[in-house]
Amino acid sequence: MPHASCGLVHHLVPDLSTTLSLSNAAGFDFIVVPLSHPRYRLPPPGHEASATGAPICRSYAFTRSDMLLKSTDWSSLVVGSLPRDLQMESMSTGVRRESEERLQRELNYAAHLGLSAILVELKRPENTNLARALYSFILKSSGSGPQVWVRAPIIAPKAECTPEERGDSTSSWDWWNNLRTSANFAKKLGLVLELDSQLVSTITDEIVLKRWLGEPIKAIVLNTSSFLTNKKGYPVLPKALQTIVRQFIPSDVQVLIEGRNRGHDMSLYQSYMDHLWQQTDSGDPLRQFAKGYEDFLQSPLQPLMDNLESGTYEVFEQDPVKYTEYQRAMFEAIKDKIPEDEKATKTITLMVLGAGRGPLVRAALKAALAAERKIRVFAVEKNPNAIVTLLTQKEEDWGDQVEVVSSDMRQWHPEEHDKADIIVSELLGSFGDNELSPECLYNAQHLFKSNAVSIPTSYTSWVGPLQSSKLYNEVRGTMDVDKISGSNFETPYVVHLQNKTELAPPQPLFTFVHPLHGNIDNNRYEIKSFDITMDAVLHGFGGYFECVLYKDVMISINPPTHSKGMFSWFPIFFPLRTPVRLTKGQTLDLNFWRFNNGKHVWYEWCITKPVAQPVLNPNGRSYTIGL
Amino acid sequence: MPHASCGLVHHLVPDLSTTLSLSNAAGFDFIVVPLSHPRYRLPPPGHEASATGAPICRSYAFTRSDMLLKSTDWSSLVVGSLPRDLQMESMSTGVRRESEERLQRELNYAAHLGLSAILVELKRPENTNLARALYSFILKSSGSGPQVWVRAPIIAPKAECTPEERGDSTSSWDWWNNLRTSANFAKKLGLVLELDSQLVSTITDEIVLKRWLGEPIKAIVLNTSSFLTNKKGYPVLPKALQTIVRQFIPSDVQVLIEGRNRGHDMSLYQSYMDHLWQQTDSGDPLRQFAKGYEDFLQSPLQPLMDNLESGTYEVFEQDPVKYTEYQRAMFEAIKDKIPEDEKATKTITLMVLGAGRGPLVRAALKAALAAERKIRVFAVEKNPNAIVTLLTQKEEDWGDQVEVVSSDMRQWHPEEHDKADIIVSELLGSFGDNELSPECLYNAQHLFKSNAVSIPTSYTSWVGPLQSSKLYNEVRGTMDVDKISGSNFETPYVVHLQNKTELAPPQPLFTFVHPLHGNIDNNRYEIKSFDITMDAVLHGFGGYFECVLYKDVMISINPPTHSKGMFSWFPIFFPLRTPVRLTKGQTLDLNFWRFNNGKHVWYEWCITKPVAQPVLNPNGRSYTIGL
Repeated sequence: MPHASCGLVHHLVPDLSTTLSLSNAAGFDFIVVPLSHPRYRLPPPGHEASATGAPICRSYAFTRSDMLLKSTDWSSLVVGSLPRDLQMESMSTGVRRESEERLQRELNYAAHLGLSAILVELKRPENTNLARALYSFILKSSGSGPQVWVRAPIIAPKAECTPEERGDSTSSWDWWNNLRTSANFAKKLGLVLELDSQLVSTITDEIVLKRWLGEPIKAIVLNTSSFLTNKKGYPVLPKALQTIVRQFIPSDVQVLIEGRNRGHDMSLYQSYMDHLWQQTDSGDPLRQFAKGYEDFLQSPLQPLMDNLESGTYEVFEQDPVKYTEYQRAMFEAIKDKIPEDEKATKTITLMVLGAGRGPLVRAALKAALAAERKIRVFAVEKNPNAIVTLLTQKEEDWGDQVEVVSSDMRQWHPEEHDKADIIVSELLGSFGDNELSPECLYNAQHLFKSNAVSIPTSYTSWVGPLQSSKLYNEVRGTMDVDKISGSNFETPYVVHLQNKTELAPPQPLFTFVHPLHGNIDNNRYEIKSFDITMDAVLHGFGGYFECVLYKDVMISINPPTHSKGMFSWFPIFFPLRTPVRLTKGQTLDLNFWRFNNGKHVWYEWCITKPVAQPVLNPNGRSYTIGL
Repeated sequence: MPHASCGLVHHLVPDLSTTLSLSNAAGFDFIVVPLSHPRYRLPPPGHEASATGAPICRSYAFTRSDMLLKSTDWSSLVVGSLPRDLQMESMSTGVRRESEERLQRELNYAAHLGLSAILVELKRPENTNLARALYSFILKSSGSGPQVWVRAPIIAPKAECTPEERGDSTSSWDWWNNLRTSANFAKKLGLVLELDSQLVSTITDEIVLKRWLGEPIKAIVLNTSSFLTNKKGYPVLPKALQTIVRQFIPSDVQVLIEGRNRGHDMSLYQSYMDHLWQQTDSGDPLRQFAKGYEDFLQSPLQPLMDNLESGTYEVFEQDPVKYTEYQRAMFEAIKDKIPEDEKATKTITLMVLGAGRGPLVRAALKAALAAERKIRVFAVEKNPNAIVTLLTQKEEDWGDQVEVVSSDMRQWHPEEHDKADIIVSELLGSFGDNELSPECLYNAQHLFKSNAVSIPTSYTSWVGPLQSSKLYNEVRGTMDVDKISGSNFETPYVVHLQNKTELAPPQPLFTFVHPLHGNIDNNRYEIKSFDITMDAVLHGFGGYFECVLYKDVMISINPPTHSKGMFSWFPIFFPLRTPVRLTKGQTLDLNFWRFNNGKHVWYEWCITKPVAQPVLNPNGRSYTIGL
C-alpha cells in the first residue's frame, strides 16, 4: 500500500521526546523542529572565540544535548529547521556577521547530530550570501552531511509585504533559481515547496506549476488552514489544491504538515495524505516496470557490437504491447502479399533479421495462422548464444517451416529463390536509429525481393528541451576514468524521465524509410527551433522515436503518442555541459548531426540560440556506436 | 543461525531441471554443472566461422537452451564448469586453437546466461595461455560478467602423475600464483581450493595452509570420499580436515561437495557443513561489531582537524573494554597521588584532555568514588557540539565537581593552582600516534604540574608484512578524483583485516612517552627487518598499537596482545603500489618515516630488500594529517 511520508512541523519544542512520541503516535514519520532555543543569543563578538587563550567556562548550552536521542533516531526522525530571523543579506556588517555565526553553528550542530536534512526558508529574491554559506557547508561536509532543504512558496505573495521585503519579482521560482545557481546546483540542495491554499488560488498560469515539476522537490508544505472540513467531519483539501498535490506524488515527495490542529486530531491530516497517495497508484505496466529506475542513467545498449545477454532478451520479450503490434502489422502485410484467391497455392518468404531468441518468429507464425496464409520463415541472427535457443525451438516446435541462419544479416547471401517478400526487424533504440537499424537494413537489401516490404516501414527520432536539475546532477556525477575529462556531458543516456519539466513539445528530427533505392546516405543534419514559453533553465534534450510498422500500425515512445503500456524503451537524454537560463519568449535553436565514418556512428549536438555553445562530442570523441 | 552455502558438483547432467530440483531438495544452494555436452565437438576450423557468407544452417545446438531456466535462476542457482580436457598450453597450434575456441565459446555462453561464476581447473604449473584468455574475457565483460573461479588442490599431488604432467614444483600455490599474476590479480578471479583428505594428510608444514588464507578463496571442494561415517551412521570429516575447514569459515567461503553418495543421503553432507558453521560462530564483541566491515577500506578519522559527529562518539562509547581499563588505570593513579592518610584532606586535579561527550569524565568520577579519594575534574574539549553534551551533564549530574572548558588543549592557559596532577586522554588512532596524540599532549604540557602523570604513559606503533590479494584489489579500486593519480597506493586505510596472511610477526616501530621534558622531536625514522618463512606475495603492511595506560594497565590492538573484545580500533593498512614476490629465506626491509612540518604530519614508507621500490607518499603528497 502506498504511504505518504509525512513530517509534522513544530515551531516551539519545550520537550523533544514528548513532541516526538506524540507526533509518531499521530502517524507522522518525522518531525521538523528548530535546532536551537529561540531566545539563545551568541555572546558579543570577541567573547566567544577566545583568541587570547582565556578559559571559556560557559554555564549553559545553546541547545539540547545529543544524548536525548540515539543517533539513528536523530537521523531518521528529526529534520532541523534554521532560525527564521537570520539576516544573511543585511548590509550592516555586525547584523550580517551575527547571522552568519548563528547559521554556521546550527549547520555544524546538524552535521554533528547526523540529521538527514535541515530546512531553511526563502523570504526574498536575493539570497546570495545565504547561498554561499550553504554551498560552503555542503562542500565541506561532502558525502556525510545533511541535505539542505530550501523552503519557498509556490508563488510569491504580493499583498502582505512591502516590495523591499518580498522584492519586485513575483516569481518565487526566481528566488530559488538564483540561490541554487549560486550554489552550483549542488546535489545536496533540495526544494521544499509551500502550497498555501490562498497562494494557489492566485495562480492563473499553469506554467507556474509545471516549472516546479523539474526541480529537485523533496517535500511540499501544507498548512492546516488550507484544509476544509467535509460532511463527515474530516479535514480534506479543496479540489484545486488536491489536483496540484497529485502532480507531485510520482516524484516521491514527502509532506510537511504545519499549523494548529483546528479541532481535528492531527492524525487525520496524515491519514488524509495516505488516502490521496493510495488513489494515485497506477496499474500501468510501464510504470510498474520502471519502478526504481526513475531518473537513473544507463548507457545505451549496443546490440550490434555486443551480443545481448539472456536476461536482457528475457525482459524485452515480456513487453505486453510490442509483439502484439508487430503481429498486427505482419497479419496485414501477409494478407496484402497473398490475395484471398491464392491462399491455398501461394507461399511467401518472411525473414526475421535479428531474430534474437525468436519472439518475432513466433509472432510471424501466429500472424500467418490467423491470416490463413502459408509462409516460410528465415530466422537470421548473429549472436551464437541466441542461436542455441533458436535451434532448440526449431527442433522442438517449428520444424521445417523455419530455417535458422547463424550469420550477420549484412554478410549472408542466400539463393535467389530464398529472397524475402517480407522483412521483419526490431533494431530500434530509444532514439530510433541509434542502435543502427539504418546501417543494418540498408546493408541487407540484397535479401529483399524487388517488391518486398519492410516491417518497420519507417521511423523518426524526436527531440524536446528539458529542465531537470536532477538529471544534470546525475550526469555530473557520472565519471568514466577510461574516457577523456568531461566525456560524461558528451554522451547520451537511456533514462526513465521523471523529475523534469518539458520546456517545449518535442519535434521530429531524423527519418529513415525501408526499403530505399538509389543513393543511400545515413548522415544527417537538422536545426530545430523551439519557442520558450516560460522562464526556465535548460539542462538537455529528451530523445524519443515514432515508428510506422506497416500502414496504420505504429509504435511510439514520443510522449504525445506513446504506445500505452509498452515498456521496452525508456527515453534517451542528451545533456548540455552548462545549464542555460531561458527567458519566456526566447527562441531556442538546437543543431543535431548524425555521422557514419564506416566504422562508427555518432551524434554531435549544440545550441546556437539564445546563446551559442561549443559543439558536444566532436568527431565522436566521447561516444560512438560500433558498426 | 549461520548457514554453510553449499553447491553440489555434477559431471554429467542429462536433464538440468531434474538435477536442479533434486539438489535443491537435498538442501544445496546451487549446482556446478558442465556448460556444454561433453561429446559436442566444434566443426573443423574454417567451417564454423564462415567468411564467405554462405548460410550456416546448423541442425543441432552445442548446448541446452537458455529458456530452460529464468535468468534469475541461471544467475543464482547454477555455476558452470569448463571442460576438463582443454589443452590451452599445447605446443601444437591446431590442438591449442581448438581448445581456445571451445573456451571462448563457453565463456561467452556463460556471460550470455548471466551466470555469477564459472569454474576452471588447474592441473599443471604452467597456465599462461589460459591466464591470458581468462584475463581478456574478464576485461571485455567488465562489470557484468561472471566471476572466474580457479580450482586448485591445496597441495600438488606427487605420486599419481609424471613430472611432465604435474611439473617439478610441488607447490600448487605457485600454479595459482603464476596464473593470477599473469592476469594482473584481476578482482573477478577467485580461488576454489580442493581439500582432499589424502592430500591434506601429506601436509607437514603449517605454512602450506596459512598461505592460502590470504588468497581470495570463494569456495572449498570436499569429495565425499574424504568423509568418514561416525557411530550414528552420519558422514563426518576426519579431525585434521575439520581443523583446516574451520580456518576458512570466517572468510565466508562456500562449499562444493563432489563425488558419489557412498550410501548416505546427499543432504547429510550439506547438514554436516551447516553443523560445522554453527559451531564456529563467535560471541566476541569485536567480531560482532565488525560484521560486514571485513576487508572494507575506510579513511582514517582526523579528529583533530574535523569534529567527530554524535554517531561516532556514540559507537565508541559502547566499547566494553576501553573505559573499564581507563577506569582501572585512573583508580591506581588516584590512589598513588593521594596516600591513605590524606584521603580526607587532599583533593587533586584531574584533567580530561579531549573529553568528547564525557565518557572519561564519568569513568574518572567512578574511579575516585571507588578509591574513596577526592578529585576535581576539568573536561577540556575543542568541539563546540560536544560542549553542548558536556554542559548538559554538568547541569544535570556533575555540578561543581566538573568544569567544562570549551577550548583546544593547546591554547588554554589556566591559573597556576588549576594545573593537573593527572592528565587523561584518549587520542590514539589505529597506528598509535596517527591521530596526533604526541602533538596534542606535548603542546599541552603547560597544563601539567611538574610531577603530573599522564594516562596513557606511552604508546608504540607496530607493523607487520601482509599478503592479501583482496586488500590489493580494494586499494586498486579506490579512486579519488580530487587527488593525484596513484594516490590510492600512498594512503593508509583503516580496515578490519580478514582475508590475509601474516608473512612475519609484527615489530614495534615508533614510541612516544608522556610527559617528556627537554627537547621534543616528533619526527621518526626506523628500518625493520623481517625474516620471510614462506614463498609469498607481499601486498602491504598491517599497522597496530600497544599502549601503557598506567603501570601494568595496557590496551592493545597488536594481534599477539590484542585486548579481548575491544572494538574501538580496526588495524591500519599501508599498501604497496606493486606486489612483491617473496621467497622463503629472504629478508624483507621496511623503511618508515614520520614527519611533522608544523602544519601537517605524514608518513612515508618503502621497502629496500629483497628489492628496492620508490618511496611512497613523498612530502605527504597523497596523504597528510592536519594539525
